[in-house]
Parts: sequence; structure tokens; C-alpha cells
Amino acid sequence: VKKKPPTSQPSPPAAKPWEAAQGHGSACDPLAARFVESLSYDTRLYRHDIAGSIAHARMLAKVGLITADDLGAIERGLDEIRAEIDAQGEAWPGWRIELEDVHMCIEAALIEKVGDAGRKLHTGRSRNDQVALDLRLWANDAVDALDASFHRLYAAFINLAARDGRIVMPSYTHLQRAQPIVVGAELLAWLEAFGRCGDRLATLMLMDRDNPLGSGAIAGSSLALDREATTQALEIFEQPTASSLDATASRDVAIDFVYALAMTAQWLSRWAEQWIIYASTEFGFITLDERYTTGSSMMPQKRNPDMLELIRGRCGNVYGHLVALLTICKGLTIGYNRDLQEDKRHLFAAYDTVRDGLAMAARIVATTHFNEARIADGLDRGFLDATSIAEYLVTRGLPFRTAHQIVGRLVKRCLDRGVPRLADLKIEEFNTVCRDAGAGGDACGKDVYDWLGPANVVDRYRSAGNAGTSGFEAQLAVWRKRLADTAADIRC
Amino acid sequence: VKKKPPTSQPSPPAAKPWEAAQGHGSACDPLAARFVESLSYDTRLYRHDIAGSIAHARMLAKVGLITADDLGAIERGLDEIRAEIDAQGEAWPGWRIELEDVHMCIEAALIEKVGDAGRKLHTGRSRNDQVALDLRLWANDAVDALDASFHRLYAAFINLAARDGRIVMPSYTHLQRAQPIVVGAELLAWLEAFGRCGDRLATLMLMDRDNPLGSGAIAGSSLALDREATTQALEIFEQPTASSLDATASRDVAIDFVYALAMTAQWLSRWAEQWIIYASTEFGFITLDERYTTGSSMMPQKRNPDMLELIRGRCGNVYGHLVALLTICKGLTIGYNRDLQEDKRHLFAAYDTVRDGLAMAARIVATTHFNEARIADGLDRGFLDATSIAEYLVTRGLPFRTAHQIVGRLVKRCLDRGVPRLADLKIEEFNTVCRDAGAGGDACGKDVYDWLGPANVVDRYRSAGNAGTSGFEAQLAVWRKRLADTAADIRC
Amino acid sequence: VKKKPPTSQPSPPAAKPWEAAQGHGSACDPLAARFVESLSYDTRLYRHDIAGSIAHARMLAKVGLITADDLGAIERGLDEIRAEIDAQGEAWPGWRIELEDVHMCIEAALIEKVGDAGRKLHTGRSRNDQVALDLRLWANDAVDALDASFHRLYAAFINLAARDGRIVMPSYTHLQRAQPIVVGAELLAWLEAFGRCGDRLATLMLMDRDNPLGSGAIAGSSLALDREATTQALEIFEQPTASSLDATASRDVAIDFVYALAMTAQWLSRWAEQWIIYASTEFGFITLDERYTTGSSMMPQKRNPDMLELIRGRCGNVYGHLVALLTICKGLTIGYNRDLQEDKRHLFAAYDTVRDGLAMAARIVATTHFNEARIADGLDRGFLDATSIAEYLVTRGLPFRTAHQIVGRLVKRCLDRGVPRLADLKIEEFNTVCRDAGAGGDACGKDVYDWLGPANVVDRYRSAGNAGTSGFEAQLAVWRKRLADTAADIRC
Amino acid sequence: VKKKPPTSQPSPPAAKPWEAAQGHGSACDPLAARFVESLSYDTRLYRHDIAGSIAHARMLAKVGLITADDLGAIERGLDEIRAEIDAQGEAWPGWRIELEDVHMCIEAALIEKVGDAGRKLHTGRSRNDQVALDLRLWANDAVDALDASFHRLYAAFINLAARDGRIVMPSYTHLQRAQPIVVGAELLAWLEAFGRCGDRLATLMLMDRDNPLGSGAIAGSSLALDREATTQALEIFEQPTASSLDATASRDVAIDFVYALAMTAQWLSRWAEQWIIYASTEFGFITLDERYTTGSSMMPQKRNPDMLELIRGRCGNVYGHLVALLTICKGLTIGYNRDLQEDKRHLFAAYDTVRDGLAMAARIVATTHFNEARIADGLDRGFLDATSIAEYLVTRGLPFRTAHQIVGRLVKRCLDRGVPRLADLKIEEFNTVCRDAGAGGDACGKDVYDWLGPANVVDRYRSAGNAGTSGFEAQLAVWRKRLADTAADIRC
Repeated sequence: VKKKPPTSQPSPPAAKPWEAAQGHGSACDPLAARFVESLSYDTRLYRHDIAGSIAHARMLAKVGLITADDLGAIERGLDEIRAEIDAQGEAWPGWRIELEDVHMCIEAALIEKVGDAGRKLHTGRSRNDQVALDLRLWANDAVDALDASFHRLYAAFINLAARDGRIVMPSYTHLQRAQPIVVGAELLAWLEAFGRCGDRLATLMLMDRDNPLGSGAIAGSSLALDREATTQALEIFEQPTASSLDATASRDVAIDFVYALAMTAQWLSRWAEQWIIYASTEFGFITLDERYTTGSSMMPQKRNPDMLELIRGRCGNVYGHLVALLTICKGLTIGYNRDLQEDKRHLFAAYDTVRDGLAMAARIVATTHFNEARIADGLDRGFLDATSIAEYLVTRGLPFRTAHQIVGRLVKRCLDRGVPRLADLKIEEFNTVCRDAGAGGDACGKDVYDWLGPANVVDRYRSAGNAGTSGFEAQLAVWRKRLADTAADIRC
Repeated sequence: VKKKPPTSQPSPPAAKPWEAAQGHGSACDPLAARFVESLSYDTRLYRHDIAGSIAHARMLAKVGLITADDLGAIERGLDEIRAEIDAQGEAWPGWRIELEDVHMCIEAALIEKVGDAGRKLHTGRSRNDQVALDLRLWANDAVDALDASFHRLYAAFINLAARDGRIVMPSYTHLQRAQPIVVGAELLAWLEAFGRCGDRLATLMLMDRDNPLGSGAIAGSSLALDREATTQALEIFEQPTASSLDATASRDVAIDFVYALAMTAQWLSRWAEQWIIYASTEFGFITLDERYTTGSSMMPQKRNPDMLELIRGRCGNVYGHLVALLTICKGLTIGYNRDLQEDKRHLFAAYDTVRDGLAMAARIVATTHFNEARIADGLDRGFLDATSIAEYLVTRGLPFRTAHQIVGRLVKRCLDRGVPRLADLKIEEFNTVCRDAGAGGDACGKDVYDWLGPANVVDRYRSAGNAGTSGFEAQLAVWRKRLADTAADIRC
Repeated sequence: VKKKPPTSQPSPPAAKPWEAAQGHGSACDPLAARFVESLSYDTRLYRHDIAGSIAHARMLAKVGLITADDLGAIERGLDEIRAEIDAQGEAWPGWRIELEDVHMCIEAALIEKVGDAGRKLHTGRSRNDQVALDLRLWANDAVDALDASFHRLYAAFINLAARDGRIVMPSYTHLQRAQPIVVGAELLAWLEAFGRCGDRLATLMLMDRDNPLGSGAIAGSSLALDREATTQALEIFEQPTASSLDATASRDVAIDFVYALAMTAQWLSRWAEQWIIYASTEFGFITLDERYTTGSSMMPQKRNPDMLELIRGRCGNVYGHLVALLTICKGLTIGYNRDLQEDKRHLFAAYDTVRDGLAMAARIVATTHFNEARIADGLDRGFLDATSIAEYLVTRGLPFRTAHQIVGRLVKRCLDRGVPRLADLKIEEFNTVCRDAGAGGDACGKDVYDWLGPANVVDRYRSAGNAGTSGFEAQLAVWRKRLADTAADIRC
Repeated sequence: VKKKPPTSQPSPPAAKPWEAAQGHGSACDPLAARFVESLSYDTRLYRHDIAGSIAHARMLAKVGLITADDLGAIERGLDEIRAEIDAQGEAWPGWRIELEDVHMCIEAALIEKVGDAGRKLHTGRSRNDQVALDLRLWANDAVDALDASFHRLYAAFINLAARDGRIVMPSYTHLQRAQPIVVGAELLAWLEAFGRCGDRLATLMLMDRDNPLGSGAIAGSSLALDREATTQALEIFEQPTASSLDATASRDVAIDFVYALAMTAQWLSRWAEQWIIYASTEFGFITLDERYTTGSSMMPQKRNPDMLELIRGRCGNVYGHLVALLTICKGLTIGYNRDLQEDKRHLFAAYDTVRDGLAMAARIVATTHFNEARIADGLDRGFLDATSIAEYLVTRGLPFRTAHQIVGRLVKRCLDRGVPRLADLKIEEFNTVCRDAGAGGDACGKDVYDWLGPANVVDRYRSAGNAGTSGFEAQLAVWRKRLADTAADIRC
């Protein structure tokens, strides 16, 4: 390898450079200890781990594998540990990196507290089914938390729609001006998309409600574990997993979760991009609150939409986590493999990113204003009513493809003669063009003007789900009702 | 840029080199024509496109936007076109690349056949809602086809399990021998995983059953379209889409579909890897049928598992399609953008890959044999009964962690003294080790030998979902019942 | 699995539906034949395969493993086959799907033509090293072809820069107006990025110039092959590969190639996005040629930038191919595995996509106009000269952070008093603000106005590589020289 | 959204649950502060940031934009800050989250220390070019560090090859036994692959050696910055970047770096998979040191290859980082966008993962033993010498394809008659088979036995780069020389 010229300080860059100097007195290989541990990212499971252990211990007592005294000691010990970690967090002395993970740290602390009873907790259990359980318990809580985040975002869109939703604006296909709509139609389009994201997460998480606890290391147990009992005690499950091999080898729950997050990130990135464009000087459709932009002390008028940019960019992070999980599982044999340990790293990071993204999105939506005057300024540009007049001609009996051609000639006439708007053409000109296209000379009546101009157009849309006044009002009512049903749960 | 030495023939490589010579006499830019067309991959939508058009035309007639005569002509024309394409396939003269896509080719052919009535078909419709509809109709058929493929695979696993499922084999964690199981437990583990894949696909596709037809280009229509009528006519939908912007801008259905395929590809790759390893000389657990291996005329004993390797490798293809779709949608503004046209390329290719992969997997499973004698040869290696004896000690009152330590010493004793199996130790030796561990000198009774040896162990598993005899038989019965319910639909 | 309601026609959708009906009379499994073949996408290698075979045969003759007569027959036969395929393309009767791939089809045709001499061609060779060789020969030609495509794009940017490059326009950070630049600075920024893409491809392809031919199936050969001879004959290599295992198991060349394409796709997507925004009505900075937009017969003024959108969207395709290749190779054991066959699918598709994207980009750049008047209209918006005046104050001795604060106050003064431009402030106002900031009352001289206004600012930039007049002219000269050096090779 | 049954504790899970309770008294939005900061992952840049600032300040003094006194104060201040952070690490009080990033924290601390001189440091600079510079300086150090890691791995392979490399073992294609090789051939195959990974990283990083400092926010500067001076002072660059827009908008350096890491991760995953298989009981080819396996106190004989599994699994992490970066840059307009801030997150994490993976791989290679006896046991299985005998027949004048067929019949004869090895056939049997194939009755001489048996075969390979004795020894010598050249730099 040809090398670039040496630099003056060739020392290897450490993650945090000051860590480089730290000596490791450990007898065994310190890299090995650092290499296998998951404690640096799995401590957030402690409540779920303890809840799972208590359910397991109660079942062991029920079937007679431990005594009532053992159970009492275990419950007391685990309650104490939870309280300690609640209070001390990262500073809890039980976090010992050499024990590798949250499970072993808690079990070790328990044994220290209650002795032999603690040594019985792991009866008929393995870390393989234990972590599979913890993950599902955590996912269940995480879905609840995200559900609240989604609802806050829904509420923010609805509130904004209620205030600014009736402003007439252009819609865009190919980022080119297409037809006039009301602002609310776009807001409720985002709402549909995010609503689908929330539904997808809930649907995927409800798909598989099997309790892995009791699957052991890979083959189950020869002890008479009562898996129905733990299933019932843990509340969120419907039945025990049917295959101990599958239960300990699958990470489908984690991947499904991250996929649902990736789809949410997709829509967050699309919405962010749209609003970044709307916030540009050239569009000027919206004004973002200065709390959610970064100004410049040199250019106080400037409002960089950094939050939106970060939301957009972090879509990449979540996609990356999905790819990582899919790659990890590609070609992996059945039965637990240590590769699977990495799942939590991606699951937790993707969750944090999307949860924060949703929260920030709700704040931005709640504080943004659509600039009615500025939007109105440009509404006459782009012949936004061209499709409307074609539909008018259809109501006058012309085949659509013929009407389509006629409108093309009308617009061309405007362009050729410097007429800015279709509404500025005289009725005779409309009919001349129709006649020239072989459509009869009275295709247009005076009512043609009722179909022209953005304000007329948005009021004329009649199809269900349209982006004009009637579609907006109907859809807004649906969402208000939907939100009202769950309002008690939302803390906006 | 420094260039490598020139080669003798520097002509640019064309996709199919002989195409390079073809002249293009076209007046307009031939690259542009090739660049925008989707006809090379969207013709497979023709039946769905025609079905959608007929539903649309009937609705137009119902609400009076076209006449009964128009409708008759449209239906007759479209029926003819479908029959022509059914018969002529790619050779149908209506496929004209300059019309870009399946939709325009069919509409143009219709107008040629029936004149003005054909020109009315597109009333209140746009290619934007038309393609969104076609995609959903196609997806619905595709789910049916995949469902049949999944069921054939399920049936193959069940049949194999019924024949070879009771053979005792080692299970593996970390690809190291762990505990004894029956072959059927592994087969049904794959079945659980693939069953979940089939469920996921169905679940995701049932999540969103909204009919996009009637959404127009982006804003809906000012004509009195009856979207409930088309929704009912098309049978697979529950209601019209609520937002015309969202309906034409979203490709969530395509991404969800491809995600479900990617998860299936994940499990296909895992199963393929496992069986490639099992088919190695060193493992020798299975013999693949020669139809699904490639031999070598030089080494007739050799059976390369090429089909399994291709199944494993094509997991990458499907992951790639998922990433492609996610990337395409990242940061895309709302409203139709031409980027979305690429969706079908990925959806169709991913579908073809997984459909073929499932079909090939079913054939392989149906023709593979587990080599009982060969597997039995090695069963005594690896102290597969170590966990069993630990659980025995638990039934004798020892805390699990203590039992765990004792077993460690027992195995070490075997290793130190060259004793190949735990069952070869005398009862006194068991109790000596227990005593030395402070566990009382009569921890083990004579019944300890009933817990030793792979055959005993697989019969002793008692927890629900275990990988031994009882778990296997119970799970097999569940799957047989599940399959029986749908048996009429399966063509194995 | 709960199923959705049955549809009327539940037949499985075939890729091309009309293919579903085709019967397969084949005795063996037709799915298996279709499953393993690569002939549907590897025929484009035929010239490279033949070139490799000729080099191999000449070496065999040189070392005495075949006779001069054998060599003559082989060369004659292969020349004929190449000529036949050149002429007949896909219709060449030698393409027989049951032979699986391009290599076997050509060898079979050769044996048919020349008998035993043909049977000697494969001496000391395996398909494993043969395909590795073909891939590198193909890649070498492909790099040449792409190099020409890159150069056409470079030339287009340079020509546009020469014509429109001196127009003053705003630059954007965060899509917010930042500082004034000249159009050419942006054009040459794209040029730098694409230049780097071209360099990266060439650099990666030059990195590994080892000839795999002679590596055999995995272990090399016991025959006295002269690998130096084939290396020299094939011209593009420097030495034989050093490890026969690595040579047949690695697909790094394919992945490196596709990575270089993915980076090119990245920049194509960024440029496309930028110009889609510039082509919007609201920005109006550029007018795209109608050959590279799709109009609407209804709205003749509309120019949808479909080509740019497809360029942007197909970035996803190329990313997908990269992920597919990386996934395929993840966790693959050394030695040839059939998974590797999929490499060509991705390599060829990614190549086609980027080659077409570059070609289309060159056409678009060559035919686009920057709208000077429209851009000029908005130049006074956004205080684009704020940074300039801060730098002026630095030249007057103020610390930059202090100057920065003063400019903030100046802009605020403009906003508060409705003064549209900094240049409209009086010299006294400048100095009042400076004094209030504690900076001395004569910080600004009359020359301050020479630093204000976009036209002044772009002329004042002095740092190397700046985005104003001097930077642009200097960079343009460099590129012209660079292009001139290779001009003989470019066919614009 | 239908919800799953409520759980008892629906509180949202925080990353570290104990953080949930922490109040934020901040006046502004605490989420916003957390949302935009990069300080939690960019502090590792502090040395590079300071080095860049010192080079910048010296240049400012040189061109007269600051005084010698200013420069003295800046240098003194920055030296102090570096010393403080070296000593205090994360505890340095200058790390203030509200300042967002490493750049602002250091500049703020400097101003606090030295007043107005500090306020002059940012003259003609922006965070946009500053972070681009820091990234490149960091990357340069990181390449040096990785280079050392690569070399330690090379050395480990070479040492192992020197000790165990001459053991004869089977090679595998399709994970089926193929031809005999020596262990060293496989070891040096990995070495070739990892050598290419090291070269790729160095090559990509050497490709672009342009100094971004002086590009400002986007357009450069109107001050007379001397970019050649900083370029020379910073040592690792060749010239200033040619385009200020490109310099601040591109993250190609980060993506190239992570791509090189991803390719390294690919090969780490392949090697890990291979050795996990070799370490299985069924293969038993290698014994891993217990420091790099996790045992089980219950099954002391068990050595789970957890380190190898983590190396394999973390390939997914690195692929994920690559996809994340590519996604972030997809469709991003030119000029700095805040999305780019995420680059460091992925760059640093991918670097840490691969650096640790290489280090762990070196330790594992250095401590692993190939089990000669165990490997030898199985060498007679699988007719590994079949290809050799075919090549023998070629030397006797048979066309290769004919020889190939004859060997097929010979092997079949062995299988049919229960003869375990080709070498056990009599010379007459060889010739009978040859004659039956029409090849003349004396095709085989007595010397045929010299071509049979794995030990003979590995000694007979003659082609350059072969996997037998001669190829191994030659390649080992090359690597030893290569390593010797850089030995002074390696700290094994």
C-alpha cells in the first residue's frame, strides 16, 4: 500500500480521544470484554427484564419448582433493584461491564441480595428466551409511547387545518403547478399518510402476540413449566410461542418494528422536504416559528429550517437501521447466534430517532403559518383552471379527449396573445376555438366563467376525497371524530 | 483522469451488443423515448387495467357522463383487446413504445376500435389514479398467487415432518451442538417462520383497502363521479381513498408488499444456509434430490446445492428492491412525481424472485431425505444431555445455578478421564461431584440415567412448544388442522 | 391467515401473463431450468468470453497442451461464432437455455463446429475463473464507455457555463438565499462532483489489475499453464492473481464498479433535484427544452421535468443494486458459490441505468437556458450582501464576530424601517450602528458601497475556488484545458 | 387504530429510563436543543478542529488580517484548550450542549480566554468549511490507525500460515469438497482479500486531497485568504478545493471512507462465517482460543465462537451506515444542508466497528490452531483427486472434455464397487474405463498413481497462484517481503 505523507501526530484516533490513554489492568483481554458487552445499550430494558422475571418466578412457585419463600425473596429483591435503578440510573453500582448485559447484572445483584432463592430464578430459562421476552415487553411500551406521539402530530395537523385550511393554494405534480386546492387538503393528505404509519406499526405489532418465555436456550425444558400462566400474567400475549427454535432465533418483531419506523421516516422526510421548499423565499408559502429554525446573528431575517432538514436527513439513519437488521439476519442458521445481540442497538436508535422526529414535527406543525396573501399573489399564474374547463366541456357533451385538445388550444391562444388568464377570454373566443376543433359553435355557455378561477374551482370539486372545499370539510370532520375518540389518551 | 492502456476494441458495450448497431431513424430523441417508457415492464398489468377501465366506464354510464351506447362500445372494445393480448402476448400490435405505457396503449387501441366512445373513457380520470388502481388490483392477485405458493411450501414441510420428523438430531446454537431435538422440531420451526411471512403479507395487504380510482391527477374531479360505485364493483376495496393527494403520491402499498417479500427472502436465505451446511460431507444430515442439485460429470458423487445457493443469494436481490423503493420515496414531495414510475420495476422483480424461490423451496423440501443413520452416528458427541441432567438436579431440589455448576464438573470429569458420555459415569461419581459442590451426597438417584442420552432427552421435554417428541407431535397436529382447512385451495 | 374476499379470477399473475399458458414438455423440472440459467442476462459477455478463450487457447498452444492445428481450429471456430452473434444477436441458434449460460453455449457451438479441438479449449480452465475473467474484460470496456459519457456531460456543463455562466444568481444554504454567486460557479460545482465520480470509477477499476484466468475451479492447475502469457495477451492486466481461492470467490470488482455508479447516481439525483426546483414556476431560474420535458396537450405551457425526475428516482435503483451485491456477499464462504451468479444482474442493470442517466443529463444540460431577467428580478431580496459588508468591516479592523453583530443590526434596521437593501442606507446610518456597537464612529467609509449589491459582491470574491467572477473564470479555464487534453476522445 | 390491550404502566420508555424524570428548566424548547446538537458525538474532533484553527490563524496573520499578537493569543489559547481536553475529556467544562457542537464550544472557550483575538479567529471562515476540514483531518488520522490494524491482521495471518500453512486440507466450492489444498493457501486468500481492503481505503482516501478550508459558508471570501498557505501548513493536502459550493456540500469523503469500511466488513463476515463452520464439531478443522470464545460453566467443552459471530453480525451495522449516508445525500440540493450533520454519526460508528473488528480478528487468528489430525482423517472422502487425474489424462493427449467424462466413469466405478479412493483402482481398471470411452487402451501409465491422493495433488499444482505447496510458498514469500517493508511501522 502506497501511503500518503506521514502526519506529525500519527496516534490512532479514539472514539473520545481522552479514552485512549486509559490503561486496562484487567487480566483478561480488555478488547474482548468491550467486544461482547451489550450493557452500553441494553440497560433501558431493566424494567421489562424485572417484570419478566417476576412473572417467571410466580409461575415457578405455582408449579412447585420454587417455594413460596423463594418467590417472596425474589420479588422483594427485584423490587428493590428496580427502585434502586429508578433512583440511580447509570450510577447504579450493579452495572458491571464484565457481566455483559442487563440480564446478568440484575440476576447477579439479586443473588447478592437474596442468596439461593436468587440462584433459582433462572430455572427453566435461558438468556435466549429471556431477551426475546424483554424485547417484546419493551416493544409493547414503545408502541404505546409512539402512539401518543402520532396522536400529538395528528392533533397539530388538525388544528392547523382548522385555522389555515381554507386558504386556496396551487397543488403540484412534478413540482409544477397543477390544479388549485385548499391548504387543508394538503394538510390532511399528510395526516392520511402519517395515520397509515401509525396503523402499520400497531398492525405489525399486533400480528404476532406469542410469548417466548419458556423456550429455554433452544429446545424448551424438561421441567413442567406452565407457559399459559406466564402468558396470562404478562397480559400482552395471546399464547406461548409454538416453536422453541423459532422463538429464540427470530428477530422478526424487531425488524417489523424498525420497518414501521422506516416508513414513518419516509413520510417525515417527504413532508420535511415539501415544507423546506414552501419556506424558501421563492415559494414563501409558510413561515416557520423561530424556535424551530436557526437564525443568523448576521442575517436576522434568515430562518434556516434546520429542524426540518434534520428530520429529512435522519430518514437515512432509520433506513440504515433497517438494512442493518436485515443484513444481520441474512443467511443466519436457526438457533440463537450472537449476531442477534446487535438487534437492540438498531431497534433502540431507530425508535429514538422517529420518536423525536414525530415530536419535533408536531411542534413545527403547531407553530407554522400559511401566508395567505403571498400564496394568493401567484394564484393566477399557471392556468390552474385548465382541467376545470375541460370538465365543463364534458358536461356540455364533448368527449374528454376532445375537450382536452380544445383546452390546449385555449391556453395557447392566451399565451400567443398575452392574455394572462383563461377567464379573460371572451365567450366568443371560447366558442371559436371549440368550433375550429369541430365541436359545434355553442359548446360554451356563459356559465363557463363559473368554472374558472381558483376560487371557483376549489368549490366545484365533487368527487369523494377531493382536494377542494367539500373534500376538505368532509375529511376534517372524519379526523376530528377519530381524534375525539382517543382524545382522553392524548397529551397535546 | 489517468486512463488505463487502450484496448483494441474501445466500442461502448451495449446491453445486448448486437443492439448497438441498430440505427434510429426517429425524428425525436430515441434516448428520450427509451428513457421514459415503462412498457418494457408494465404490460403484465393489462388485465387489471382493463378491469379498472370497465368499472370506471360503468360508473360513468350510471351517473350519466356517458351513454349506454358508449358503455357498450367501450366494454366490447376492451373485451376484444383483452382477448387479443391473451392470445398474442408480446406480439400484440397495440404495444407501441412511443405510447410509453400499458395504459396509453390500451386506450389508443380502444379509440381506434370504437372512436368517440373510447375518447370518453378517460373522463374524470388521470393516469395518476389509474396506475395506483392497477397496482392494487395486481397486488391483490399476486397475494393470492403467493398464498398458494406458501401453502405448497407448508404442505411440503408437513409431509417431510410426518416422514422424517421423529429422527433424533442435535440442535445448534452458535453453530455448536446444544441439545437433542427431533428433526420435525426444526422443520416446524421453519414452518412457523414461513407461516409468519405469509401472514405478514396478508396482514399488510389487508391494512389498506382504499380505492384510489376517482382521485384524478391530484385533486379529484368537479364531475359527479360515484366512487362508491366503483369501489363496490371492484370487490376488493372497502371505501374510496380519503385524500386525492395522498392516493396519487403514496407508494406504500408497493413498499409494504416488497417488505413482506424481503422478510420471506430473509427466511428463505436462513433455511437455505442451514441446509447447505447440512448437505456438506462433514454434516451429512440430508441428501438433496439430484433434480435440485447440479452434479459434475467428472465427480458424479458430487451434488452441489446450487438451487439453495441461488435462493440464499437472491435474498440480496429482494433486499435491494426494498432499498430502491425506500430511496425513491425519500424526500419526495407530495403529488405525483415521475420517480414513482420505477415502483413497478421493483415490485414485479421482487415478486417473481420470491414466488420462484418459494416454489423451488417446496420442491426441495418435498424431495429431501434426512439421513437417520449418519445423524445417529454423532449423537453421542458433545454432551447434548448436559442441560437435561441440570434440570434433573433441579427436580432434586438444587438451585438451578448450583446444578449448573455441578454439571460443569461432571462434564469436566468425563473429559479428564476420557469418558465419552455422561451416561457412562457411575451413580457414585455423580454423587461425589454433587457432594464436592456442597449439594448433599444423595442428590442423584438411579433415575438419573432416565434423563441421559439423546433419546431419553427428547422424550422428556415438557414445556409447551418444546423441540422434542411431545412438542413436535402437538405442533404437527396444529399445522395439519390449519392446512386441512385450506386444503381445497392448495394444488400441491 | 384471514383472507380477503375472493376475486373472480384468482389465477396467479405471470410476469407476462400470456406466458402462463405456455406448456413445458421438458422431462426435467422446467422451474429448475429457469431457476439456474443466467443466459437471459449474460449474453452481453459473448465478445469478452471469446476474447478470453482465444487468449487461453494461444497459451495452451504455446506451452504444448494443444497443437497448432487445434489452435487454428479453435480460433477459426470462435471467430465464426462471434461473427454469427454479431449478425444474429438474440436470434443466434446457439443460445440454448438448457446450457445455462453464455460460456457453455459458446463452447458447445465450438465443439459442434470443430470437434475434438473444441473439447480441448477448457483445458486447465473452469467456469469459475472464466466468468471472473469475462467480468473484468467487460468492466474494462464499460469504464471506457462511461468515460466517454462522463466527458460528454463535462463538455455540456462547460458549454453552458461559457454561455450563461456570468449571470449573477443567489446561492442557497438550507435552501435559503445565502450569498450572490455567478451561475457558472454552480455549473462548475456540479462539474467538480461529476469529475470526482469519473475519477472514482477509474481509480477503483485501476486498483486491481490482476488476471484471474488460470485459477481453475478453486485451486489452480497441475498443468504448466503460462499465466504471464495470457496476462500479457489480454493487455489490461498487470499480473496473474496471487490466490486462486480469492480469484474465484471475490466479487470486489463488481461491487467497486457498482459503488462508483451509486456515487454517480447520488450526484445525478442531487443535480436533478436542484434543477427540478429551479424549473418550478416559483423559482423560474431555468427553462428546460421541450424534448426533455413532457408537456400536456391540455396545458401547453406546462413542462414537466420527467427526465430529471426519472434520473432522480433511478438513484434508488442503483443504491438497490449496491445493497443487493453487498448482501449477496455477506457471510459467504470462500470458494465459488452459486450466489455469485447474481452479480451480473446487478452490475449490468446499474451500468445501463447510470450510462443512460449520464447521457440524458448531458442532453438536458446542453439544451437548458438560465433565465437572466427572471433571476435578476429577485436578486435584491434576502440581503445577499450581508456577509460582504461584514468582511468589509474586517478590512476596517473590526474583529469578525463584532462585525457579524453589527451587520445583524444593520439588517434589522432595514427591516424595521422598510429599507429593502443595505445599499439604500446612508453612510451615517452605517456609522451610527457601528458606534452603537462600540466599534468607533468612522468604521465605514464611502467605499462601503463598493461592497454592496450582488454585482459588486460577485466581483469582489478573492479566495481561491470562490463562487464569484474570478473563481469561475479560473476554474473554467482549468476545465477547458483538462477537456482539451482528452478532446480527441470525446464524441459530443 | 385498534389498540392492543392496555398495559399496567403505559409510561413512554426513555432511552435510559431514569432520564425520563429529569426536568428541563430551560426557557427555550429542550427538545429543540437536543434535536440539533452534535456535541454528543463530535467531540472526538477537538484535536483536528484546533489544528485547523491554528493553520487558519497563522494564515490570517501572514496576510495581515490579524496581528502577530492576535496570533500569539490564539495559539496560546488553543494550546491550553487542547491540553485541558486531553486531561479532562468529557468532564471539560467547555462542553456546553447549548453551543451545539465541538467547533462552537472551542471558539467560545477561546474568546473567554483571550477576548478580541478570539473573536478574529473565524475571519473568512464558516462552520461549513470548518467541519469539512475537520472531517478530512480526522479521516487522515483514522486511515493511519486502520492501516496499523490491517497490518497487525496481516502479520497474524502470516504467522499462522508459517506454522500451520503446510497442512493438507480440502477446499470447498458450494460448501462441497472440491480439491485438496494446503491450509496456507486459504490463509493467504484471506490475506489477499484483506490486503485489497486496506489498499481500497488508502486509494480512496488518496483520491481527493483537496483542502476545503477557505470555502466559507458557500461562496468563498472577499478577503485575501491565502489558501495555498493553509494547504501547505496542514501537510496532507495537495491543493485548495476548486469549488466552494462543492467543498461545503459534498460528503463524498465520508461515504468513500464508509464504503471502504463496508467492504472490509464484507470480508470480515465471510472469514468469520468460514471459521464458525470450521469450528463446528462436525468440521472440527480449527480450535479457537478460549479467550475468544464464550464457554459455558455447564458445558466446559463448549466453545461458542461469539467473537466471530459478532464480527459477522456487525457487518450489518456497517452496511447500514453506508446506506444511511447514501440516503442522506440522495436528492440533496447543493450548498450546505443541515442533513449533512448526521455524517459524523455514521462515519465514527462504522470506523469504531471495523477498527475493533480488525483488532479482534488479529487476536483470533494469532491464537487459533488448525487440527491436522482431524483434517487428515477425512481427506480420503470425496475423491478430491478427481480433477488431478483428469489433468493427467490431458498430459496423455486426451481432450479435456473427454478426460472429464472418463474420470466420471472412474469415480462411478469406485462408488458402484465400494472402492473408497481412486488410488485403490488397479491400472487395468483405469485403462478399461479409458478404452470403453474410446480413448485408447493405454491412456494411463503407472505414473498415474503419482497424481493421486491429496498429498500428491497439492505438490503437483504448477500454475501461478495455485493453492498447493508451490503457490503457497511463493505467495508467503511475497507477503513476508511486503510486510517486512513496513515492519518498522507495525506494533504487533
